[in-house]
Amino acid sequence: MHKIPVGVLGATGMVGQQYIALLNQHPWFEVRYVAASPRSAGKPYEEAVRGRWHLSRGYAPGVGSLVVADANDVDAAVAAQKRGECAFVFSALEMAKDEIKALEEAYAAAGIPVVSNASAHRWTEDVPMLIAEVNPDHADIIPLQQKNRGWSKGFIAVKPNCSIQSYMTPLWALMQAGYEVRRLFITTLQAVSGAGYPGVASLDIIDNVVPYIGGEEEKSEQEPRKILGHIEGSKIVPSDSPGISAHCNRVPVIDGHTACVSLEFGAKKPSLDEIKQIWQRFRAFPQEAQLPFAPEQPIIVREEADRPQPRKDRDADKAMAVTVGRLRPCNLFDIRFVGLSHNTVRGAAGGGILNAELLKVKGYL
Amino acid sequence: MHKIPVGVLGATGMVGQQYIALLNQHPWFEVRYVAASPRSAGKPYEEAVRGRWHLSRGYAPGVGSLVVADANDVDAAVAAQKRGECAFVFSALEMAKDEIKALEEAYAAAGIPVVSNASAHRWTEDVPMLIAEVNPDHADIIPLQQKNRGWSKGFIAVKPNCSIQSYMTPLWALMQAGYEVRRLFITTLQAVSGAGYPGVASLDIIDNVVPYIGGEEEKSEQEPRKILGHIEGSKIVPSDSPGISAHCNRVPVIDGHTACVSLEFGAKKPSLDEIKQIWQRFRAFPQEAQLPFAPEQPIIVREEADRPQPRKDRDADKAMAVTVGRLRPCNLFDIRFVGLSHNTVRGAAGGGILNAELLKVKGYL
Amino acid sequence: MHKIPVGVLGATGMVGQQYIALLNQHPWFEVRYVAASPRSAGKPYEEAVRGRWHLSRGYAPGVGSLVVADANDVDAAVAAQKRGECAFVFSALEMAKDEIKALEEAYAAAGIPVVSNASAHRWTEDVPMLIAEVNPDHADIIPLQQKNRGWSKGFIAVKPNCSIQSYMTPLWALMQAGYEVRRLFITTLQAVSGAGYPGVASLDIIDNVVPYIGGEEEKSEQEPRKILGHIEGSKIVPSDSPGISAHCNRVPVIDGHTACVSLEFGAKKPSLDEIKQIWQRFRAFPQEAQLPFAPEQPIIVREEADRPQPRKDRDADKAMAVTVGRLRPCNLFDIRFVGLSHNTVRGAAGGGILNAELLKVKGYL
Amino acid sequence: MHKIPVGVLGATGMVGQQYIALLNQHPWFEVRYVAASPRSAGKPYEEAVRGRWHLSRGYAPGVGSLVVADANDVDAAVAAQKRGECAFVFSALEMAKDEIKALEEAYAAAGIPVVSNASAHRWTEDVPMLIAEVNPDHADIIPLQQKNRGWSKGFIAVKPNCSIQSYMTPLWALMQAGYEVRRLFITTLQAVSGAGYPGVASLDIIDNVVPYIGGEEEKSEQEPRKILGHIEGSKIVPSDSPGISAHCNRVPVIDGHTACVSLEFGAKKPSLDEIKQIWQRFRAFPQEAQLPFAPEQPIIVREEADRPQPRKDRDADKAMAVTVGRLRPCNLFDIRFVGLSHNTVRGAAGGGILNAELLKVKGYL
Repeated sequence: MHKIPVGVLGATGMVGQQYIALLNQHPWFEVRYVAASPRSAGKPYEEAVRGRWHLSRGYAPGVGSLVVADANDVDAAVAAQKRGECAFVFSALEMAKDEIKALEEAYAAAGIPVVSNASAHRWTEDVPMLIAEVNPDHADIIPLQQKNRGWSKGFIAVKPNCSIQSYMTPLWALMQAGYEVRRLFITTLQAVSGAGYPGVASLDIIDNVVPYIGGEEEKSEQEPRKILGHIEGSKIVPSDSPGISAHCNRVPVIDGHTACVSLEFGAKKPSLDEIKQIWQRFRAFPQEAQLPFAPEQPIIVREEADRPQPRKDRDADKAMAVTVGRLRPCNLFDIRFVGLSHNTVRGAAGGGILNAELLKVKGYL
Repeated sequence: MHKIPVGVLGATGMVGQQYIALLNQHPWFEVRYVAASPRSAGKPYEEAVRGRWHLSRGYAPGVGSLVVADANDVDAAVAAQKRGECAFVFSALEMAKDEIKALEEAYAAAGIPVVSNASAHRWTEDVPMLIAEVNPDHADIIPLQQKNRGWSKGFIAVKPNCSIQSYMTPLWALMQAGYEVRRLFITTLQAVSGAGYPGVASLDIIDNVVPYIGGEEEKSEQEPRKILGHIEGSKIVPSDSPGISAHCNRVPVIDGHTACVSLEFGAKKPSLDEIKQIWQRFRAFPQEAQLPFAPEQPIIVREEADRPQPRKDRDADKAMAVTVGRLRPCNLFDIRFVGLSHNTVRGAAGGGILNAELLKVKGYL
Repeated sequence: MHKIPVGVLGATGMVGQQYIALLNQHPWFEVRYVAASPRSAGKPYEEAVRGRWHLSRGYAPGVGSLVVADANDVDAAVAAQKRGECAFVFSALEMAKDEIKALEEAYAAAGIPVVSNASAHRWTEDVPMLIAEVNPDHADIIPLQQKNRGWSKGFIAVKPNCSIQSYMTPLWALMQAGYEVRRLFITTLQAVSGAGYPGVASLDIIDNVVPYIGGEEEKSEQEPRKILGHIEGSKIVPSDSPGISAHCNRVPVIDGHTACVSLEFGAKKPSLDEIKQIWQRFRAFPQEAQLPFAPEQPIIVREEADRPQPRKDRDADKAMAVTVGRLRPCNLFDIRFVGLSHNTVRGAAGGGILNAELLKVKGYL
Repeated sequence: MHKIPVGVLGATGMVGQQYIALLNQHPWFEVRYVAASPRSAGKPYEEAVRGRWHLSRGYAPGVGSLVVADANDVDAAVAAQKRGECAFVFSALEMAKDEIKALEEAYAAAGIPVVSNASAHRWTEDVPMLIAEVNPDHADIIPLQQKNRGWSKGFIAVKPNCSIQSYMTPLWALMQAGYEVRRLFITTLQAVSGAGYPGVASLDIIDNVVPYIGGEEEKSEQEPRKILGHIEGSKIVPSDSPGISAHCNRVPVIDGHTACVSLEFGAKKPSLDEIKQIWQRFRAFPQEAQLPFAPEQPIIVREEADRPQPRKDRDADKAMAVTVGRLRPCNLFDIRFVGLSHNTVRGAAGGGILNAELLKVKGYL
């Protein structure tokens, strides 16, 4: 079987490297095109990342010898597409938000679908913000998006911020089971890899905590509503619930975002045992369609008093599962729990790949 | 002026060492008696802590040569008291809760006041649980306690759990200013020194977070109510508010507990500016009485987006101040903020010393 | 094909857990017997390690339900052997050295071969201390050991201390190539997992370095000489070279021991290029025999200025390879380099499994 | 008494901040002039460092309101000198080495003495590289330097690299006592603050070690020879010994450089007891002249097996002392020991201030 040739934009950055590493031996996709900043352009990928490769796992030998293109040069990607080397691109661009927005549109307009990790288009009304287990049906806005904009083959699909993935699937599982989620207090303890590279200075985080991450609380409070929204006409109308208050902290952890959640249900309230069963039994589109990057069990429930923990649970099920624990009653709301997911895999490149698999199965790629 | 001779029970442990270090050159008190487990008893203090001294600052030379007594031997302390070497004791005992409870009572019954850091007597109805800036008047239950129990000179006074100190004084300042505090969501990020020594294994906390500290959430939810209670007859009746929901986490930080707080006021709600002014202007008994360990400004307000931080703020004002920051509106409650205090100084030995200063000025010591 | 049933002594400890995890899906061996301290005995393994499992990877479902035996009860192991559940044991015992020594002998005397990770028998003259790439021929003392002691099937084989594995294979490769290694200065930066669990207190190592590990420098200086020794009569006579001076430090790293080495050759001195080629081309018995746990390339040479690094290189080739870098001339001796290996895999359980594979292929198991 | 008004160049950087903090309440010097990059120029110091102040201690209120000058603008400093606000400058410039070299010369040529922390002029033949306890007499090259260059009041004096301070004073004490130090193997474990801010990325150092610091090994091997050199004509001729081989590592420690040292004496060799006495009794110019920043005891000897440690010993004696421990015989050379000093105080700003005090007492300032 022929693999689909894919490109990675921003291939030398933190998330870009994760894409390259995770796509190594992917059963459906093969990296044939890499693009990055002009500084890296023209060099073999291997040379461009020398001394900057952050992961313990490596990349496919074939990728090392690819010559890095300039990510600003959409024509180069179009040419690669014509040569059969770039059916679509994963965007892990690191630029100003406006630049990314325009550039991703340019790729789409030129006929190259963009599966993006960037935040630029998350609030564009006709762009789906996908968590494959939660709102796979939002992919169905793509034909409308193409029609809106006069694009033939190209389109843009994005994924949400990394930190909300530690609790969105558990919330969704409860909603699917018929329980309204009305309000949420969330405090996150987020890993340094979420800030990219060089990102957080060691002088700021060793023996320390930084109780602030620019823009993160707003994303945590708003993005869930779009994900839980519905398609109306040619746009996605956000849900007006749940109400969320988020405190976001940076902690000295390499990978893995932890979230402490207090949750208020609507009138109908499940028991703790019922919640555990709902979570353990939850399966969704990626599991049913047997997507290669789908975790077998999207929500892993731990019974120990002191789990989940980032170092011990982040890699669960290819680092694609969400692990929850400490489910207990809340003094003020209904329940409390702790959720955890791997921020650069599930919350970034791995989540992007899963989205691409979803889009492939749905016929958009 | 003659200094008051004091004893330290549990003098070789983590908090005991902090007492010894902080009392070095105290203007009122002088350590003349040290007691610990039978294992250390009989050795000079210097020898008992060799290789186990955890602090970068040292102890007074005079303390090093004190022979460690057995903390279980109350008679030894009574004899020391007769020799003029132990007017009262600071208790930093590390034993089973029941043993501490009985032993502290035995000291008090024998005529030796106990200013304790232990949790054993926190919920004993006639024992005051003091934060010197918040409920100094609770000290006035001491004569009733002595009468209840037929004790002449001895008594027991305790301090609350270390982590609540990061937000209790800010809450109290608001209450003092006439604003009811109705409900609180609190997530703490606590330092490893709070678990004593050896305490948290490095394998459990490097590149990791542990979202659980045994018993800590219950303490965080209940102790504030006793502190905010009132004396009725010969006992302290806890307040029935505020409602608190706490998530307690251990993070890889040496010293300094951080708390993310969402707060709901009663009907009357101050503006953010008003809150800042209330906090900055707050002064209480320790400041008015100019107690040696009182911070000049009990609540320090930081305006930077990313403060307070444990490594940068824990030592503020002799490590006795509470630093608050990130004051902002809350989506669900009224306001959000981050509070921070030094857990082994303000939250343990320093807080105990401040309590003893309070009790001295009030005439109980 | 039937797998060989094996037992793990000390199965609930740090290294014991690594054995259990690494033997999951081993092509030749299957864990059918687990033994630990009396405290764990009688419980299903799953229950015995609940809340104490330190690894992110898990164990085989079959192992979770094994009932833990008392490691002191040799008869239980003999009974298991008779039932076909314990052909030999991996020893990861954590007890006093004398007790381990006697207990391992008791197993061997009872007909159960012991492949040990403990240090107890490292200096027993007729016990081989094996690094499978370096001195596989020392296994041939086993028949002599059995004859000496009147043992029929049982015997003891051990592996050396974890930290020396970061440089022993590179040294051996150079010696094999005909270059005498005369003297070595070695400074190690060792991971906390090397101290077991709870091991190093977080209060001792966060934002800190401890420049001392009890007994480690002596082991580092002496064990290489036994490994480089030869069989004479029925004992292994240590080599009288190289001369080694070791400084051993504990650093805040979870896994992976780093060693800074300065090396003096004998009269004949290879060039740096020659050394790199020797290392890259080095293959030994485990590679030739295609042992399952053998790294494909036992010595990986990195060219980057700042490698090897524990977090990035410890997992190379199933965490079984040694990674070297920073090869450069030395001002005082001939060359300097940095070596790194995974201390609980290559340096402990993984090394023990490789030794068992070697012993199997050589016909002793 | 009037304090001497001083300037700080590079006042907003890491070392510049340390100068500002340490000069707070200095008995002789008062910061009246601050200069930094054009980006900060024109802002009050307070504003220029807002959100970038790395230290837990603060700065003098008077400094906060100083308007930051452009460090490239030597005329501004000359004008300040005329106004009596800048008798001399501490240079903590962070620029390209060539730029610093030229700029420091321009200040000196304009009549403003420069006491520098930068490496630019360390190898300029007529510039003294001072450790106040080791080579205070090298200050006497200053009149020759001024004559060489036709400078009247201005001159340049520098201090060596931070990491060598952890062992240079102990070496010098032994040399002073009549023992030749012939050869040294040194492995350092260096704190992240040595790399400035943002410096080392947290992704590079949490749960990790980086066995390389650009240029550090060369400095460690060469600078001691200049410090141990002698004035000949109008230049300092480096000593041709000792021979040094250095391995420099970055470890996850905030402050405090640790050095593991193996030392070979000449023919005459002191006993371990003698060495301890030499170190404990060592006093030098700064102690005799009672310079304000001089540690009372320049070399602190610890007897515990596991000291010195950075977090516990870096702050010894105002963070200006060197702490040594683990003195023991070496298998290959004569002795081994571990040395430790605070890299941003003793090794940077504090050392610079001590040098200025020395130059003041010697009449050059």
